[in-house]
This record gives sequence, C-alpha cells and structure tokens, in this order.
Amino acid sequence: MKGKLYGIGVGPGDPELITLKAINAIKNSDVIAVPHAKNGEKTALKIIQTYLQDQPLLECHFYMKNDLAMRKEHRLKAANDICALLEEGKKVGFITLGDPCVYSTYMYVHKIIEERGFETEIIPGITSFSAVAAKLGVSLCEEDELLHIIPASSNDNIEKILECQGNKIIMKSNKNLQKVLSILKENGFSKKTKIVQRCGMIEEKVFNSIDEFNSDNDTDYFSVIIVKD
Amino acid sequence: MKGKLYGIGVGPGDPELITLKAINAIKNSDVIAVPHAKNGEKTALKIIQTYLQDQPLLECHFYMKNDLAMRKEHRLKAANDICALLEEGKKVGFITLGDPCVYSTYMYVHKIIEERGFETEIIPGITSFSAVAAKLGVSLCEEDELLHIIPASSNDNIEKILECQGNKIIMKSNKNLQKVLSILKENGFSKKTKIVQRCGMIEEKVFNSIDEFNSDNDTDYFSVIIVKD
Repeated sequence: MKGKLYGIGVGPGDPELITLKAINAIKNSDVIAVPHAKNGEKTALKIIQTYLQDQPLLECHFYMKNDLAMRKEHRLKAANDICALLEEGKKVGFITLGDPCVYSTYMYVHKIIEERGFETEIIPGITSFSAVAAKLGVSLCEEDELLHIIPASSNDNIEKILECQGNKIIMKSNKNLQKVLSILKENGFSKKTKIVQRCGMIEEKVFNSIDEFNSDNDTDYFSVIIVKD
Repeated sequence: MKGKLYGIGVGPGDPELITLKAINAIKNSDVIAVPHAKNGEKTALKIIQTYLQDQPLLECHFYMKNDLAMRKEHRLKAANDICALLEEGKKVGFITLGDPCVYSTYMYVHKIIEERGFETEIIPGITSFSAVAAKLGVSLCEEDELLHIIPASSNDNIEKILECQGNKIIMKSNKNLQKVLSILKENGFSKKTKIVQRCGMIEEKVFNSIDEFNSDNDTDYFSVIIVKD
C-alpha cells in the first residue's frame, strides 16, 4: 500500500495556535518534511517540537530567489524525495507556517505529488492575517465589507492597493515595505493602517499607524499590514 | 478585580480544527457565552462540548434580519449581560464559528465591551474559506496572486465580483447564490468555480464546477464559493 502526504498548517507562530488536527497528523506521520528556506523553517519546526515522536525529518530545500528554473528544480527535488517515501508506504507530514493554501511553497510540491496519483490531505492552519487582526482586536471584515489580500511582492500589485475598494491585508511586502507605506500615507491612509511584525513571536512589534512605524526593521518577511477602509 | 472577555474562534465546524489556544481559553472561562441565532450556534457549542467543565452557559440572542435598530438592541443586551459578569470578576469565553475577525457578530459585542474599559482578547480560528480550500486541495493564492473575499449579501457587492481581478472567495451568498452563480457562468467562470456547502460537517457537499451544482440546496448559509482566476 502506498503512503499519504499531509500538508500541515501549523499556524502563524504562536505554538498554541496549532489545531488538534495538525497535532494528530504530526503524531501519525512516519516522516516529517520540513521546508528549509530563509526564515520560517525553524519557526515551524519549533512549533511542533513537542509533538515529534522521534520521526526522521526530511529537509526540503527551496530556492526563494527570482530564478524560476531554479525554483522549479528545487520543488521537483523535494517532491521526488517525498514520493520515494510514499512509495515505501510511509505517511509524510509536510509542515508549513500559517495555512498551506495561502502563499505557501507546499502547494507546488502538493500539485506534483497529487498528479503522480498519491493520496494527499491538506490540514488548514491559522493565517498570519487572522492572528494579526486578533492581536489588534479589529475585525477584518464586517457586514457587507470586502477584504482584499494583496501580496506587495511586485510593482503591479503595489499599484492595485489603491484600486481595491474595501479593507486590505498587504502581505509579502518585504523589500517594498517602505514603498507601500509611502503610497498609503500619501493617499491619507496613515491612521487607517496598522502594521504587525512577527505576530505572536517574542520579537513581535505592533504599529498602530504609519506615523508610529520605525523604519529600522523594514525588511521583515513577517510584516502584515492591515488597512481599514 | 474585573473579569476578562475572550472572543474564541472555534473553527469552521470540524471539531479537530480547533486550536489549543481556544481549548485552553474555554477551560479557563467561568462562563461560556453562546451566540444564539439561526444556524451556527449549535455547531459552535457541539465543537466545544468536550472541553466544557460544567461552566454555566450565557445564551446571547442576536437578531439577524434587516432591521438595524433591532440588531443593535440585541447586541447591546448581549454586551450588558456579559459586562454584568465581568463586573463580578468572571472570565467570559464567547464562542464563535470560524474566526471572530471574519464576518462575525462577536465583534459588535467586543467593541461595546472594549469601549467600556474591560480587558478583552481575541483567539483567531480557522476560517471557512481555509477549510474549503484544504478540502478541495487548491491554493487560495500563490506567488503574486491577489485574493478577494466578497460577501454576496448585497447587490452592490455582486456587481463587484467581476471587477475584482484575481482569485475570489464569495461568502454569505445565501439567498443570492443562484444569482451569483448565473453571473459567474455567463462570464465564463463555470469551470473555474467550486462550491462547498457545510464544509467538514456530515452534510458536506462539494461541487467542482457550476455545471455540477444542484439547485436543491441553494440557500445554505454555509456555502463558500471559490473562483480561481
């Protein structure tokens, strides 16, 4: 009998924000696949440490820079490594920060493995933006309000920030963080914008307006921006 | 010493999709506040049944029809009832399906109580759309993709569905479900649209395109529509 792949969302960082389903999947996995990329990976492993039962870890190395061919090569390598285990009948739990369905590298591996006919299951996780809204004590959307999730990773998308009418979550701002904040500020959103960095982690920082924002720490991958329209 | 209000997201319906933080907050609450409205309320209570430790339940009745004055009156009554307990130093855990920050009645009560100076904490939950994406095995957003969350509760918003470029989640379609599906179909989104009703519950139904959709069950509050652009 062939194995099964679990894509396990372990939540945004706070170890208590993991679901029972994720914990059970980790405990039932024969091998835990751990994405190994700049940032993130150690956090995911730290969250699940308590639930590991001496299972071997499979490190999956991902290439996060712009070279698409290199990125695909790394994803394929990770998928091949996992498939070898699935062929042996192993259950593989692939852990990922946040939710596997929201901007996660896991999905590329998932698609390759699913296309090869293996059984897969995704276990959703608390997203970073849910954690940020809870932290701030604000709703993301109420009544008839729209909510737009915008990755600020490209210039095209930065232009779309103002086009989208309604509440906005801006993610993956990274190197574009200052640019995004400038645009929001110029257009009168300073007081309507809140920024949380590394939500739920020890290094957490909360800025309740753009004016409060300190540019010292501006390229943090874990920054989430909420704009209430 | 005054009490504290916890807004507890218990996830989308599957009892395993509750977080440890939610379970701990329920166990530590002196009173559990349960929203009592058409649909939903029994599901939330069913999810947490295992974790109840003989705490008294406070039923909060909400008015879900269009009359805004009536809605406000019910919210205020719920807030007053909770504040009376907080004044006695009680910890009150208010349970809510999904995530308290995403289209939940809880936030109205939260705001009133916070304005009165009581301590509050929100515990995020797995949203219905994360559960639906996991169920379908599809990403909500990858790379540079935008994701729009659109409540189809008003005609204005239904018009915005086509305006929003990118992936879309359509919620609260309810009585407008057929109208929304017609618009999507007319504009070539039939194969790009998936519908999940009562995700994670016994009565769950999955439709992988609009053509698969059977109109028998079209006013189900728990329908989530995913449109991949």
